[in-house]
Amino acid sequence: MRRSVTRRSRREFIHQVGVAAITAPVAASLITSAHAQEDKRLGFALVGLGSLSTNQIAPALQKTKHCRLAGIVTGTPAKEQAWADKYNIPRKNIYNYENFDRVADNPDIDVVYVVLPNAMHGEYTIRAARAGKHVLCEKPMEVSVKKCEQMIEACKKANRKLAIGYRCQFVPHHVEAIRLAREKVFGDVKLIEASFGFRIGDPNQWRLKRALAGGGALMDVGIYALQGARYISGEEPVEVFASETKTDTVKFEEVDESILWSMRFPSGVMANCGTSYLVGGMNRLFAAAEKGWFQLDPAYSYSGIQGKTNRGLMEFPQVDHFATEMDDFALCIKNNKPTKVPGEEGLRDVKIMTAIYESIRKGRPVKLG
Amino acid sequence: MRRSVTRRSRREFIHQVGVAAITAPVAASLITSAHAQEDKRLGFALVGLGSLSTNQIAPALQKTKHCRLAGIVTGTPAKEQAWADKYNIPRKNIYNYENFDRVADNPDIDVVYVVLPNAMHGEYTIRAARAGKHVLCEKPMEVSVKKCEQMIEACKKANRKLAIGYRCQFVPHHVEAIRLAREKVFGDVKLIEASFGFRIGDPNQWRLKRALAGGGALMDVGIYALQGARYISGEEPVEVFASETKTDTVKFEEVDESILWSMRFPSGVMANCGTSYLVGGMNRLFAAAEKGWFQLDPAYSYSGIQGKTNRGLMEFPQVDHFATEMDDFALCIKNNKPTKVPGEEGLRDVKIMTAIYESIRKGRPVKLG
Repeated sequence: MRRSVTRRSRREFIHQVGVAAITAPVAASLITSAHAQEDKRLGFALVGLGSLSTNQIAPALQKTKHCRLAGIVTGTPAKEQAWADKYNIPRKNIYNYENFDRVADNPDIDVVYVVLPNAMHGEYTIRAARAGKHVLCEKPMEVSVKKCEQMIEACKKANRKLAIGYRCQFVPHHVEAIRLAREKVFGDVKLIEASFGFRIGDPNQWRLKRALAGGGALMDVGIYALQGARYISGEEPVEVFASETKTDTVKFEEVDESILWSMRFPSGVMANCGTSYLVGGMNRLFAAAEKGWFQLDPAYSYSGIQGKTNRGLMEFPQVDHFATEMDDFALCIKNNKPTKVPGEEGLRDVKIMTAIYESIRKGRPVKLG
Repeated sequence: MRRSVTRRSRREFIHQVGVAAITAPVAASLITSAHAQEDKRLGFALVGLGSLSTNQIAPALQKTKHCRLAGIVTGTPAKEQAWADKYNIPRKNIYNYENFDRVADNPDIDVVYVVLPNAMHGEYTIRAARAGKHVLCEKPMEVSVKKCEQMIEACKKANRKLAIGYRCQFVPHHVEAIRLAREKVFGDVKLIEASFGFRIGDPNQWRLKRALAGGGALMDVGIYALQGARYISGEEPVEVFASETKTDTVKFEEVDESILWSMRFPSGVMANCGTSYLVGGMNRLFAAAEKGWFQLDPAYSYSGIQGKTNRGLMEFPQVDHFATEMDDFALCIKNNKPTKVPGEEGLRDVKIMTAIYESIRKGRPVKLG
């Protein structure tokens, strides 16, 4: 424990002054010490070892500059040894859902990355914050506005940072699209079209259970189109109107299958959005501005994002979305700077998605405060 | 007059029996006679010599197999000689808006193509029908449901054919998209995205005057997206919801600038559509089906249509849209077969556009009967 306190204290020092403010001799001492070198990387613990953790996040951690896969939290004992072997994770950094709170005493873990089913995000974010850990939480933030507010409150109270896993905001093509909009490179953006859908497989997965997912296509992938419309417009919608269609009432008994919705923004910008668990091919973020247009298509895949404008192709490097997202959060923590994807950002999307569902139920537009 | 009656009678004979039913000797006599050869092409008179007639339709007539530019109707005397010289149009086939009805006595004119501002379509379609001419009328059919109904009635009463200038329905890429939908090549289409917009130029043109245009972007180019959603779904919408935005309230004082709307179809198919006179770049018809998707982009330009599916590019020849459209109508007349773009088709779109405007005024979804 004594050693952990020392390490924590050092890190706290770095947090407080910011990396840029570290004096040259201090920086040199950090670099020359092998221990300090490892110390520069923040230890991430993944909570939930489903396909996203297995196929995307754990491999991505190996590509980060400022993070390392330090621990895991799983309810499946069989996964413990396999992950320990593959990623050289010490026994003491492996938790299950019962003993997870003991992570408070583990100085190897700086950040808890919550990769659980949506309806478990709140509980594990709050437990992680109470354990003194920063939290990166997958989207959607939670399944209700109230839960999101509790998560924000818990992290604030623990003085820990909370970020939502909006990986696209760290992808160069999306960053460029946001720049084109903000800098009015083609004048003011007026109309946005954004949609993301895919044909979901396994009918037994948690994404199709309301108790675990909270909703269907909208909460899982429609949220990317919602995010896109919001960060391209740079505004918050004042009205939404949505319609739902459901063909496969067995597979999609509990959650939404396909939704189209529109949003009005204060300046008059309008967006048409769509999402689906039934049909693929929708994977696009398009903006029409006064003097031109820009588009990402595919926009939201894990890789292979392509962008173009009326002037030609967007030439940007492909990056590992999750690695970039995690490195950004690590630097926010190290430098004590705000993340651009805080809990408040996740809360806004959940509020809007709640209004989208309300619009479907009521069959009319719903105003947003 | 005697000669004209003879010619008319011969044509009427062909109409009645249909070209396919003509006996071999009769067909041979038609082919071997030089007079008959010319007679095979139907004489078109263009009413309204604006940019569409000048830059698209008249040149397209030169590329047709079954039509010829036989006459013009213009209110601008200066255009008469220029067109007469350029297209070798005899003086007797040149009309103005006052003496247009005398076309009844002109056997050179078989079809009147109405290329006037929208709010004049009804009057000239009805006058042409009463003069015994078949009518091809540009889209939108008219600016009110009532006018459309009067046009259909007039053509029916005169036993003349009426087609609306929905050129895209004759473009191979659109024909293929319709085939993919009807034959369920990728299973049932579930979601459609369709939008068409451009940044309109000259602020003094008739398209921006309510009295002449009836509406703005929606009636002029949004109608392509509406058509697309209808012929891909193969159904009629039962509900529409629309929102409008207007930034330039001077230029667009009288007509709509940008509209996004959604439509629900009886089977559960949904469509998100958009149109704009303010911003370009929207020129797309996309359909997501159960096992794949297909898309045209650009979809509605006069040339250069491109299509692709999740399997790859659509490889189809580029055609002159107007030439193909006019040849189809000529063959419908010659063979006395129904056109796939009759007045009833134009009426449906005007009904739906009327509901779209109603939805904007009322701020709520509008049901369609």
